[in-house]
Amino acid sequence: MSGTDSSRPGLSGGPAVVLVRPQLPENIGMVARAMLNCGLTELRLVRPREGWPNDRAVAAASGADRVLDDARLFASVGDAIGDLAHLYATTARPRYMTKRVLTPRAAAAELRRYVAAGEACGLLFGPEAMGLDNDEVALADAIISAPLNPAFSSLNLGMAVLLVGYEWLCAGGPTPPDVLAMPEQTRPASKAELAGLYSHLEAELDACGFLRNLQSRPSMVRNLRNLLGRAHMTEQEVRTLRGVITCLVEGRGARRGC
Amino acid sequence: MSGTDSSRPGLSGGPAVVLVRPQLPENIGMVARAMLNCGLTELRLVRPREGWPNDRAVAAASGADRVLDDARLFASVGDAIGDLAHLYATTARPRYMTKRVLTPRAAAAELRRYVAAGEACGLLFGPEAMGLDNDEVALADAIISAPLNPAFSSLNLGMAVLLVGYEWLCAGGPTPPDVLAMPEQTRPASKAELAGLYSHLEAELDACGFLRNLQSRPSMVRNLRNLLGRAHMTEQEVRTLRGVITCLVEGRGARRGC
Repeated sequence: MSGTDSSRPGLSGGPAVVLVRPQLPENIGMVARAMLNCGLTELRLVRPREGWPNDRAVAAASGADRVLDDARLFASVGDAIGDLAHLYATTARPRYMTKRVLTPRAAAAELRRYVAAGEACGLLFGPEAMGLDNDEVALADAIISAPLNPAFSSLNLGMAVLLVGYEWLCAGGPTPPDVLAMPEQTRPASKAELAGLYSHLEAELDACGFLRNLQSRPSMVRNLRNLLGRAHMTEQEVRTLRGVITCLVEGRGARRGC
Repeated sequence: MSGTDSSRPGLSGGPAVVLVRPQLPENIGMVARAMLNCGLTELRLVRPREGWPNDRAVAAASGADRVLDDARLFASVGDAIGDLAHLYATTARPRYMTKRVLTPRAAAAELRRYVAAGEACGLLFGPEAMGLDNDEVALADAIISAPLNPAFSSLNLGMAVLLVGYEWLCAGGPTPPDVLAMPEQTRPASKAELAGLYSHLEAELDACGFLRNLQSRPSMVRNLRNLLGRAHMTEQEVRTLRGVITCLVEGRGARRGC
């Protein structure tokens, strides 16, 4: 079964996550959750310390049961990676090997190219306490090392999987970096609607004397328009604000008779 | 105390992480660990369910005690964010508010600009089960929502903090995306050393007859040189490989007398 096998329904085709001698079942569960967060579904376990399957892993997976159900058990790293074409070893410490070291982001871009070409990929994660041993790192084509705080760089196992998975997901296509979320019932205000708001406000401010200084009036008007314009209002919000102005004016009239 | 306060030794000046009504002490500990992984040190807690301080949080922090020791407790979200100039609310579900929604990456770029300008920033994270309520989201200037698997987008609290912190760290400066790690005792092979290796190999391949087909010889030689060139060998590795060739040749002579 390779990372690009499409005969199995639901497989993402993303890289396989290979956990080598994981110690805590809770961490295996958190890895499964992080994987599914990132659309990865193929989990391989090499000699988990507390046996497999494990209820504590299921509890920690918070609903990512499917990843755990499909996880496959291997007796050795060699068995677990045999069908893969490209293997990345994750490590937080320098290994003094002549091997490429990539950030998760750079690795994700490579993974996307390999997977698009139908080449099975895997990510190797070591045990919590010590990480991969050097012989295991040597099996990999490259090392992935996240750019973290050099004084405190050891990640929780699930978090290490998350970072690489997150970059895999981000590398999958353009994500709008910054969108204005808007309820479906409305739309951005048109310039005419904004102009209507400004006129309404300025007329009322003229009426109540706020703009009575004719010398400063133009700059005051510009400032108000700039201020309101920065809010990128919706049509609904323009109507709301006009209601606010009307209400303030009428309330004032009702309360103070001006 | 603001996120940019520099009077307190060790403060990163990065955004404050504000956990609103966190439920599990273990998650507070994992948040502290993820923060320190990313160089963030200012943690604010609004009414943690199981009280504060908490030993279970310390155990889960795996050494990030300093972040927990410095954490400050607040009675309300309003109190916790009062000194901040820019506030981002994190959420996995759509909120149907007219508010900017940013990816962690886009938010990190903004945060870097604000912090560079000395403006205190904060990140708001809700309780594990339900996230922030809508009134809390409304307090923020913008929403951060990570581009995750839409069918399974709810992150563990610590992992949510990690993603935003990681992007904060990545936005801090250029990280070499792909470097060749190399033991200090060696250096990349020079082109002359590589040429020496190629000549050595080709002479031996001529001698043993591997290159006897003169028509295909040039392309065969090119292919071998390309293959070896892709390995980006070190000077030490070139010497090793020449030793391998020599040994193979001598062994063959010794074993078979050819």
